[in-house]
Amino acid sequence: MTITEPTTGAVPDLDAARAALRSRLLDDGVLVDLGSPGLYGRTGVFERVYAAVDAAGVRSQADLGADVLRFPPVETLTAFERTDYIASFPDLAASVSAFTGDDRTHRALLAARERGDRWEDFLEPADLMLTPAVCHPVYGLVGDTVPQSGRTFDIVGDSFRREPSLDPMRLQAFHMHEFVVIGTPEDARAHRDGRIPGMRALLESFGLAIDVVPANDPFFGRVGQILARNQVEQSLKFEFVTPVYGPDHAATAISSANLHEDHFGTAFGIRTPDGEVAHSACVAFGLERITIALFAAHGTDPDAWPETVRAALAL
Amino acid sequence: MTITEPTTGAVPDLDAARAALRSRLLDDGVLVDLGSPGLYGRTGVFERVYAAVDAAGVRSQADLGADVLRFPPVETLTAFERTDYIASFPDLAASVSAFTGDDRTHRALLAARERGDRWEDFLEPADLMLTPAVCHPVYGLVGDTVPQSGRTFDIVGDSFRREPSLDPMRLQAFHMHEFVVIGTPEDARAHRDGRIPGMRALLESFGLAIDVVPANDPFFGRVGQILARNQVEQSLKFEFVTPVYGPDHAATAISSANLHEDHFGTAFGIRTPDGEVAHSACVAFGLERITIALFAAHGTDPDAWPETVRAALAL
Repeated sequence: MTITEPTTGAVPDLDAARAALRSRLLDDGVLVDLGSPGLYGRTGVFERVYAAVDAAGVRSQADLGADVLRFPPVETLTAFERTDYIASFPDLAASVSAFTGDDRTHRALLAARERGDRWEDFLEPADLMLTPAVCHPVYGLVGDTVPQSGRTFDIVGDSFRREPSLDPMRLQAFHMHEFVVIGTPEDARAHRDGRIPGMRALLESFGLAIDVVPANDPFFGRVGQILARNQVEQSLKFEFVTPVYGPDHAATAISSANLHEDHFGTAFGIRTPDGEVAHSACVAFGLERITIALFAAHGTDPDAWPETVRAALAL
Repeated sequence: MTITEPTTGAVPDLDAARAALRSRLLDDGVLVDLGSPGLYGRTGVFERVYAAVDAAGVRSQADLGADVLRFPPVETLTAFERTDYIASFPDLAASVSAFTGDDRTHRALLAARERGDRWEDFLEPADLMLTPAVCHPVYGLVGDTVPQSGRTFDIVGDSFRREPSLDPMRLQAFHMHEFVVIGTPEDARAHRDGRIPGMRALLESFGLAIDVVPANDPFFGRVGQILARNQVEQSLKFEFVTPVYGPDHAATAISSANLHEDHFGTAFGIRTPDGEVAHSACVAFGLERITIALFAAHGTDPDAWPETVRAALAL
């Protein structure tokens, strides 16, 4: 028999706090458990808040005059390869396989299934990946030269990252609403830096305590530790974090502002008319994370939220 | 050298008609080619019409008082298995694989990639499938008994079917807005039959010529031919079809009304309070198909569409 030490004193256990929020969201009918950690159905009350968050985010970036693009949950292997994602985040990547066999192979598959064997081995890689970051497909679409004034995109799509978790702030399938600039180094940096104050003010208007901090992405493995250190030192990516689980635990990122410098310009062969490699930057609202942070902060009944919060969300 | 017979006389070639529509949608900036047949980015004008179609569909079913559920693009293998989809439509199914290795395995993956070898074999099945029909997850969520008055759901989510095609009416990744009833045999049949006239009238109000015909789903293989014949003979599923490619070609389904009888009730162990196996039925708007049918019928500039159509769509 294992004896578990009681949690000591004042700091509540983080896993317990996550489990408590998850239970509240499930019990109060905000989310529905789909049987895999971090995979949920969303109910009407979730959708109502989610739509309000998204609409407020869009209003706040309307002055960009961005070109709207919406992407499906999968991208081609070719596009995925050019982002080099499998080098940095292999553990989050997810590939798609499909059945290409004939009637006879299908019978063999069904026989294996009947025996209780795994039948996925009868499927073959389909040259498709689940999209891990919804701005990825855009870099392959702008051609080899962007105008000197750059291109600006308003992008939403399904993202998928294979990180099963009981923390309701960490989903496997989620949506980011991204506003991407591809242009000169100055324009890219100005986009990332210029949008931060307004995004912070918007999130604060939702009644959330916000800090803006350098991001620390979970790069994989030993090489990844160097990449992660570089990312922090170069201060390329900032995250808008809020203390979902209280002041004793690390705050959770709910939005971000990311300067890619020439990463995608080089990978996708994009230049500005003066012949320089294009730079890019992206600001992104994490739609599910903001929505769930709101339920965590204000409770599961939006009609009972503070009037100022409901006004900011036009709820 | 191959000599191609010229297409004879009055009937235009169907593939040519499909290619012409696809080119028009791409050239006029409605869709964006993502490099895999049937996988597109959607632009602002597409999204504007798509949102209007969806909103009109929702308004037309508002009297159902349905419970809202939204689902992610993946479902658990467990839920997928219970629908028996792999038996009927293996060629449309798509499974998800992920990387579970360590730093050393990752180096081996990257070395294989460097050599130009396929690296997907380093990934393992993740017990997740891309959802082929967005109502599937709901049957696992209602417990073993539904009330005598039944349950009614309003469901949207990403669907994926692995059928690459240059026909813009046939996408790999798409959305259906489904209205599902789970209850007595009488309620399920009444739902399917009772909704058909209103759906037909709605689609006709969009300026589309509509026929309602028995569905003929592409069941796989030799056993599938029997299933397909049964489906037509039993008249369980009807489709709302419109002649996207003119009167000389088969019309294309853009919505459906489907009586499952006890298929899902038996598979998921759902009963009504009187102890009978629950029946289910589903009516579904094919959101991308209706949207593209509208562009095909009225042109790629919604501001120039007939006033009656714009009014019906509240555009």
